[in-house]
Amino acid sequence: MNKKAVVLVSGGLDSTTVLAMAQAQGYSCYTISFDYGQRHRAELVAAESTAKALGVVEHKVVTLDLRSIGGSALTDDAIDVPEDDPGGIPVTYVPARNTVFLSIALGWAEVLGAEAIWIGVNAVDYSGYPDCRAEYIQAFQAMANLATKAGVEGRSLEIKTPLLHLSKANIIREGMALGVDYGLTVSCYQANSNGEACGLCDSCRLRKAGFDEAGVPDPTQYAAKPVA
Amino acid sequence: MNKKAVVLVSGGLDSTTVLAMAQAQGYSCYTISFDYGQRHRAELVAAESTAKALGVVEHKVVTLDLRSIGGSALTDDAIDVPEDDPGGIPVTYVPARNTVFLSIALGWAEVLGAEAIWIGVNAVDYSGYPDCRAEYIQAFQAMANLATKAGVEGRSLEIKTPLLHLSKANIIREGMALGVDYGLTVSCYQANSNGEACGLCDSCRLRKAGFDEAGVPDPTQYAAKPVA
Repeated sequence: MNKKAVVLVSGGLDSTTVLAMAQAQGYSCYTISFDYGQRHRAELVAAESTAKALGVVEHKVVTLDLRSIGGSALTDDAIDVPEDDPGGIPVTYVPARNTVFLSIALGWAEVLGAEAIWIGVNAVDYSGYPDCRAEYIQAFQAMANLATKAGVEGRSLEIKTPLLHLSKANIIREGMALGVDYGLTVSCYQANSNGEACGLCDSCRLRKAGFDEAGVPDPTQYAAKPVA
Repeated sequence: MNKKAVVLVSGGLDSTTVLAMAQAQGYSCYTISFDYGQRHRAELVAAESTAKALGVVEHKVVTLDLRSIGGSALTDDAIDVPEDDPGGIPVTYVPARNTVFLSIALGWAEVLGAEAIWIGVNAVDYSGYPDCRAEYIQAFQAMANLATKAGVEGRSLEIKTPLLHLSKANIIREGMALGVDYGLTVSCYQANSNGEACGLCDSCRLRKAGFDEAGVPDPTQYAAKPVA
């Protein structure tokens, strides 16, 4: 039997590449997405369609209401998604989001008996989020191995972050080599209901620059009109 | 302005005592409960009524669907709540539950600018859960301070676990000294819709023994008939 992995997917460029990498390393992949009250609902559709296109064992969507906590442009309608880079930690940062997502993935990994959780965090083009740094991931892994039955019984769990030190262009090159169809992926923070990107937000700008730098045609579907 | 704390409450004996202790130390308390698909819905009612009785600043209920992950007698109807102690980590253990709850509390703490998260974990009468041990809590705190904006900016967050090394009897003595009305609290894993306890599950047995040992009359409301 193959070793199992839980892979966090958002339907975006990074997590879809991570999924392809986990499969290439021989893991049976169980993908998980979160319906957390985000503006960009198109990511849930993209997550499911990319997971299915890559033939995962099971795809799960877990509902949790991060809107009740607020504090981010992605979960609070009163805060606009910025279309320039003001520096510092941006308002699109969702408090403790990766920690919450990794924790729920940890619960599922324990139920499945999975050996690893794969996540597409990136410390290069990372928008300045604190929970995308190597030291954070190491601390999460240490905590996870004390939190669970598996840890108590000596079976350790690894948090795999293959994109951590890759530029967006190199992530794209990696994924292309594995046959990822980036036309299926949606990265935009405010994509419309057809999954078309705004082309203006932080996430769109990083993605666009990545395709430019990789010298690969950008397959992103952009909205004809600016997304409101 | 008082320092702020997020306090995890379940309406049970332990977390209600923790809330009283946090208030006694001068914190402005923001309580949080989780509607995670648990069998024992009575705990949500008890959590709100005890929080209100103690006069918290705000009480929040966050919805998340841990049933979709399963793996525990508390979230999977196919697994019965045991009425004896088979030893080892019991089937009432919910995979990664404290990690998930603490992570969401961490997000709220960040939004509020809180200095501490209080949680009623206990390593004495702890039912053998791995995520109730001191080394786990220390690892979570280390991770939390790398996960957040506050951590990056040098404001550290503390995970407070005043019950960690107290026996159930001493927890009860502590709470009585602070005026906690344990008649409002519900600890049972399968309380009925009136909040009446079964008297048989692990949690009921630990609680009952605690009142006996403390030499205090047990104010728990037990169901007349065994709870199905």
